[in-house]
Amino acid sequence: MSISETYFPTEPSAPEIKTAIPGPVSKAKLEELSTVYDTKAAYFVTDYYNSIGNYICDADGNKLLDSYCQISSIALGYNNPELLKTAHSDEMAVALCNRPALACFPSTDYYDILKKGLLSVAPKGLDKVCTAHTGSDANEMAFKAALMFQANKKRGNKPFTEEELTSVMENQLPGTSDMVILSFEKAFHGRLFGSLSTTRSKAIHKLDIPAFDWPKAPFPALKYPLDQFEAENKAEEERCLKALEETIKNYPSKVAAVIVEPVQSEGGDNHASPAFFQGIREITKRLDVIMIIDEVQTGGGGSGKMWLHEHYDVVPDIMTFSKKMQNAGFFFSEAGLAGDQPFRQFNTWCGDPSKALIAKTIIEQIKEKDLLTNAKETGDYLYSKLEAISTKYSGKMLNLRGKGRGFFIAFDLPTTALRNQLLAECKVLGLNIGGCGDMGVRLRPALVFGKKHVDILASIVDEAFGKI
Amino acid sequence: MSISETYFPTEPSAPEIKTAIPGPVSKAKLEELSTVYDTKAAYFVTDYYNSIGNYICDADGNKLLDSYCQISSIALGYNNPELLKTAHSDEMAVALCNRPALACFPSTDYYDILKKGLLSVAPKGLDKVCTAHTGSDANEMAFKAALMFQANKKRGNKPFTEEELTSVMENQLPGTSDMVILSFEKAFHGRLFGSLSTTRSKAIHKLDIPAFDWPKAPFPALKYPLDQFEAENKAEEERCLKALEETIKNYPSKVAAVIVEPVQSEGGDNHASPAFFQGIREITKRLDVIMIIDEVQTGGGGSGKMWLHEHYDVVPDIMTFSKKMQNAGFFFSEAGLAGDQPFRQFNTWCGDPSKALIAKTIIEQIKEKDLLTNAKETGDYLYSKLEAISTKYSGKMLNLRGKGRGFFIAFDLPTTALRNQLLAECKVLGLNIGGCGDMGVRLRPALVFGKKHVDILASIVDEAFGKI
Repeated sequence: MSISETYFPTEPSAPEIKTAIPGPVSKAKLEELSTVYDTKAAYFVTDYYNSIGNYICDADGNKLLDSYCQISSIALGYNNPELLKTAHSDEMAVALCNRPALACFPSTDYYDILKKGLLSVAPKGLDKVCTAHTGSDANEMAFKAALMFQANKKRGNKPFTEEELTSVMENQLPGTSDMVILSFEKAFHGRLFGSLSTTRSKAIHKLDIPAFDWPKAPFPALKYPLDQFEAENKAEEERCLKALEETIKNYPSKVAAVIVEPVQSEGGDNHASPAFFQGIREITKRLDVIMIIDEVQTGGGGSGKMWLHEHYDVVPDIMTFSKKMQNAGFFFSEAGLAGDQPFRQFNTWCGDPSKALIAKTIIEQIKEKDLLTNAKETGDYLYSKLEAISTKYSGKMLNLRGKGRGFFIAFDLPTTALRNQLLAECKVLGLNIGGCGDMGVRLRPALVFGKKHVDILASIVDEAFGKI
Repeated sequence: MSISETYFPTEPSAPEIKTAIPGPVSKAKLEELSTVYDTKAAYFVTDYYNSIGNYICDADGNKLLDSYCQISSIALGYNNPELLKTAHSDEMAVALCNRPALACFPSTDYYDILKKGLLSVAPKGLDKVCTAHTGSDANEMAFKAALMFQANKKRGNKPFTEEELTSVMENQLPGTSDMVILSFEKAFHGRLFGSLSTTRSKAIHKLDIPAFDWPKAPFPALKYPLDQFEAENKAEEERCLKALEETIKNYPSKVAAVIVEPVQSEGGDNHASPAFFQGIREITKRLDVIMIIDEVQTGGGGSGKMWLHEHYDVVPDIMTFSKKMQNAGFFFSEAGLAGDQPFRQFNTWCGDPSKALIAKTIIEQIKEKDLLTNAKETGDYLYSKLEAISTKYSGKMLNLRGKGRGFFIAFDLPTTALRNQLLAECKVLGLNIGGCGDMGVRLRPALVFGKKHVDILASIVDEAFGKI
């Protein structure tokens, strides 16, 4: 029995499309909802009660194979029975009804939940965790950890001066900080004010919002297929690393941290080689800069490893997570990154035990059903199927990438218009699929996606390319 | 039968203190937890399974009457049976296992949950809602809403220029914005990078974190008892309003929004009169500035009204909420505050149906058991008890305030050291109680706090004052 059959005996064997999407029920419901809640970005209204496994069901009863999965955030498929069990448990009810202010009043079982859950898959070298609420929040807490750590080091752990204590209340130096967080071109790290200043994916994410004047470095633009452009790609990565080093040196002792995604997702599924990430690690270590790896989208097993950066043999100082884990936060090891005093890295909730319980079950299932191997093997199969399609439509399906990275596969079309057309055609044929960057299509199925689902996906993508 | 007896037949009749706090079990558990999670701010480890109603139980079996309630965020007491029912429901399980990207794939029942829940208690004049994840997040989304709205107005809804589109990718003007958010001295609006720039409560919240150079206005420092300082307090409020107007005019067309708490909580439970808030409304309306009321801590019924600003007869443009509602977000009415295009005010989850279900039950219970009346009447009773104590300890218990504001009662001590001593003595006697500002003590019980709980609280506070 395949993994999806084990979990989901009633999963459809193929998409079922009955109406246009959004259909009449979705449309009526969106109109109703739009009177009180913004629906401008809505694709369709979703019936989560009848969604199952790898199939998302809409309000009109259409069932689409889902390779987008709530923007890469569904790990075990819809209505996974093991997750439902956890959701119905007494532990969950107590966590939901008595949400703690975790930093002040941690629960008797929080250690156990973290230990059996998140910490059991802590990336190599990082053995502590700070829990948060969303990916943006996790990244900003990581920035604050890095900034306070670097400031303490500069200050030699001396007490704050009177001038620092008064100036900070006016949002002025020296109490506030002129240190910076460096990010890469086309990066996406969230949309709150600090994280948005490091996000550089699309103008629409940033327009009209005040930003910190923080620096950036170029991210490699690799050419595909990789084996035909080895020397060029190597030179491109070296150029970017050199620019990174120069930028850091242009802000002497001011760069608190560099943040980087192991695969730039929102910005277009831009990959780089292990050597590039090792280069960042070498430069940041040498120049005393904290290295933050943002695994918000890439983490949680979709790459065939728990964290995508584990493909690169690199140990950052901080690694952030959210989405597929359903629980956000960051891992770290250096004790100073937890802050030197209470109430500095702080907020009311500091996480959510109900989400930590969900994360624990997701992690337990990943281990029990060996879902990392599934992501690796099914991902390889998916890549080979798409490779065949890219040969068939060689002018239209470009830059197939993500080989050996499990499900983290993407390709481009020649224009944004054609890309959008392809996404729409796929939907008509029963495949929910996501774009990224200007011309990219990204695959983000759940970890329970099997070969039979790949066959359906490939056949729909093939047919859709034939139509555009 | 009192409200707490209806819900909690097994609630203790008095605190039960068996050990020092934190006791040996708490200490051992904190030591264990501290190896993987920051515990520097921890009071004690909490047994949420055995906490009940108004009593919080720690890992050593001590049961404290709780007037702090997870920093003002427990509405219905611990393990409220109606909330437990909701937690065990199928709706909750589906919401937890299939967390939607709400803006793209809203659920079939989201409209219904919002309509019967949050929107049924929308403040006067604000009929739409944007859901978020935490109070900080809600405030920053409100800032973004105000900034985009003001920028669109300035731009006359013309398309973005090429210069805006390119400069914003460099975090530079004109694509980014030099508009500002104005807040008040001693305000607390959160700890992310944008919200922290408006937070002005304590230096420790802000040190070493980059901040936007956003302006502030003074918040009235009222003198108590109010009836003895009417003229002085009126003059003080007029001074602050004048300063507000001048500050806005010093940033011509640059102040996107003013944000204000109806009672400054973290900053010391600083109250002002309805006239002061009406003055802010008049000035902001006249000068074309968005008025945001931050009800993150004050909202949810503790004041005897659903939202504390309803005591003031003021309709802001935006009102944010979180904490007691367990679901964060903001209310608004002007459609333009939802953004003019999809994917501008956006993030992966845009809220959480599992939290919206909790909020709905809290709201239903507030109505069913008339908990607003309880907060008002029990609050009045609490105030009268504390008034008697403040006469007894007139040199030590200062500035009793919050009359007629339900449970939103606070008082000061002459020094921070004495305040901290009082909090510690209360804990020894079985009362969990919170500080605020430098010398304040704030009361934040759940809405199910009754007169018998007031009697216990008052007797402990009395005894504790006798000891310091």
